[in-house]
Amino acid sequence: MEILVQKYGGSSLANAERIRAVAERIIASRQSGRPIVVVVSAMGDTTDDLIRLARQLAKEPDDRELDLLLSTGETISCTLMAMTLRHMGYEAISLTGAQAGIKTDASYSRARIIAVDPSRVHRELAAGRIVVVAGFQGITEEFDITTLGRGGSDTTAVAMAAILGANLCEIYTDVDGVYTADPRIEPRAQKLKEISYEEMLELAQQGAKVMHPRAVELGSVYGVPIVVRSSFNTNPGTLIHGETAMELRNKVRGIAHDTDVAKITVVGVPDRPGIAAALFQPLAEANISVDVIVQNASIHGVTDLSFTVARSDLERALRIVQSVSEEIRATDVVSSTDLAKVSIVGTGMQHAPGYAARMFRALADHQVNIDMITTSEIRITCLIGSAHVVEAVRALHEAFQLDRADL
Amino acid sequence: MEILVQKYGGSSLANAERIRAVAERIIASRQSGRPIVVVVSAMGDTTDDLIRLARQLAKEPDDRELDLLLSTGETISCTLMAMTLRHMGYEAISLTGAQAGIKTDASYSRARIIAVDPSRVHRELAAGRIVVVAGFQGITEEFDITTLGRGGSDTTAVAMAAILGANLCEIYTDVDGVYTADPRIEPRAQKLKEISYEEMLELAQQGAKVMHPRAVELGSVYGVPIVVRSSFNTNPGTLIHGETAMELRNKVRGIAHDTDVAKITVVGVPDRPGIAAALFQPLAEANISVDVIVQNASIHGVTDLSFTVARSDLERALRIVQSVSEEIRATDVVSSTDLAKVSIVGTGMQHAPGYAARMFRALADHQVNIDMITTSEIRITCLIGSAHVVEAVRALHEAFQLDRADL
Repeated sequence: MEILVQKYGGSSLANAERIRAVAERIIASRQSGRPIVVVVSAMGDTTDDLIRLARQLAKEPDDRELDLLLSTGETISCTLMAMTLRHMGYEAISLTGAQAGIKTDASYSRARIIAVDPSRVHRELAAGRIVVVAGFQGITEEFDITTLGRGGSDTTAVAMAAILGANLCEIYTDVDGVYTADPRIEPRAQKLKEISYEEMLELAQQGAKVMHPRAVELGSVYGVPIVVRSSFNTNPGTLIHGETAMELRNKVRGIAHDTDVAKITVVGVPDRPGIAAALFQPLAEANISVDVIVQNASIHGVTDLSFTVARSDLERALRIVQSVSEEIRATDVVSSTDLAKVSIVGTGMQHAPGYAARMFRALADHQVNIDMITTSEIRITCLIGSAHVVEAVRALHEAFQLDRADL
Repeated sequence: MEILVQKYGGSSLANAERIRAVAERIIASRQSGRPIVVVVSAMGDTTDDLIRLARQLAKEPDDRELDLLLSTGETISCTLMAMTLRHMGYEAISLTGAQAGIKTDASYSRARIIAVDPSRVHRELAAGRIVVVAGFQGITEEFDITTLGRGGSDTTAVAMAAILGANLCEIYTDVDGVYTADPRIEPRAQKLKEISYEEMLELAQQGAKVMHPRAVELGSVYGVPIVVRSSFNTNPGTLIHGETAMELRNKVRGIAHDTDVAKITVVGVPDRPGIAAALFQPLAEANISVDVIVQNASIHGVTDLSFTVARSDLERALRIVQSVSEEIRATDVVSSTDLAKVSIVGTGMQHAPGYAARMFRALADHQVNIDMITTSEIRITCLIGSAHVVEAVRALHEAFQLDRADL
């Protein structure tokens, strides 16, 4: 019978009562007789608590040490879950990332999975056990413990599903699924029945918090169907997969927004080859993700270059940019943090230029000024003033008729 | 240069401030240039907190799961210590029991070390690092995590010292060293400068809490000199080693007491071969330690058999004994918990019968009734009413002149 992989997030495991509720849900899935692998995150705020403890002792805790420290959060929750399942009368065993065969590189705090050796998991499943795997963690060739960074437990779940040939990976979280927009901002937002990997990737990258883009990408590469659903109810959730129903093509599927945006503008940049590289190379080396980039048309051999970074990276980015700016003899560096991104996402958008016009019109109708624009094949993103986010999301949701039921 | 092993207990690591204080102490030892391996326990009450959490979810948590759960306590403290040392400018690395090469059998919750592979520790020491090892934990051949049971971190420290050929294993705790009696009971108790492994073993087995007998035994087998001292001051502590200064032989070295005692008496036992085995075999199988055993002289082929167990084991022991008692047709089983043990310990005691007489006389002079008596080569233990413990310890301390300075 085909293996089912389930992943439960930290808020679903925040206390003893919730752990018991999740255990009952696992047992209900188990009734079908299917082999089950459960991936768990750390309970509630455990990870934040551990980071706080570390920061009390070291201003910048060493990455290797921090990874080993943080890995205990998931180890605790996987043992508690296995105990609970056993207490309820089911054979279960917890496995750390290392025991589950999750091999990673040694990039502490953001390790990449290089291989999964599923032999122990297969052995335990063959013995009739529910296997509970600690998410977010792996082990290097040197037997050092790593963590996978943001979205780590989702990534563990999708990787396990891929290697085990599971026909479904269920991501249980505290929301019902993927919505056409953030329901806290647009109450008329509709839950999507299904969405393609590519669309989900764009939504996730542009601020939808429901799943980390990395896990979606892994699912896409290995063709693992993923369901995002709530651990607090039995609603069906959203299926993320490769096929999109034909009638859903060429439609805007969702609105993403992201307020974690800071803009840096380098003013008066001499417009000659190599300038962009000189600027963005050191940012990449400092592991700072640069998002929207816009370069003005050059006038008299001088141009302005604007780009966005996450707010938490602004200070570090500014230090680097200021130093480069002196080298390349730019006039000035300015920054602002009162910005946000709104995006529309949908497959086939690139073949229908009308979407861009409709987006700009909807924003203009609501007096929302557009600061910068970028596009991908299936996305259009506008940078706007952060004060206008709620208005903009609602305007776009209405303009693209996302409150309709046939999603 | 010879390696120094230090072990710090949970109370020495109870919060960020104490961790910093211990780190400073480690650095002070490091100034000599000696390679240092530090073994740490879990912070303060972490282990109890984790057990409480487990019990909320499973009445009798599975041993394998509980071991993996509890191991996180020491993993957390070893990473925090390594971070702190690094923050203070010293190269340091944390190693889990598994990474430090502590291989054990699979007796969860009380695993025995079967081998130590020190290659990683050697490699890190050679790189100039202070190595911080998580105590109390090991790994089986199957890569399952085990814990070593009571006194586990002391055992880790002594085992590391043995395999590394360290010329000293310092056990840092919340008391100044080994005393002639518990200073909370006998304010005139003196700290011993040194004590033999055998004497320390007897004291530890008879209730002295300062070190677990198991770690002392390991030190004795491998000839590892152990110093017990406080992490809260710089007092010199007590050296536990093989040689005892000649003039200290044939002297009582310390008084131990233990109030964790319950007595079971099987009344009217038919006095025939095999009865004792029938009784004690199932207790051993249930992992219940039986201590003082006394069998009355047989009258008309019937005898009474009394023995002591830890109070926490009484209920389980009674169930077993009652069932056996019916099989062997004993008359009755009675138990009491208002008892305690007091012991005098000293090498060479067996060659000086005067000690026993002096002990009984001292107790009699203080109207302390003796319920049972057992002896070893270097120890005499009396079972007395628990209400008389303080009186008895003080009487014996005085009778054997332990408040003298030349210890």
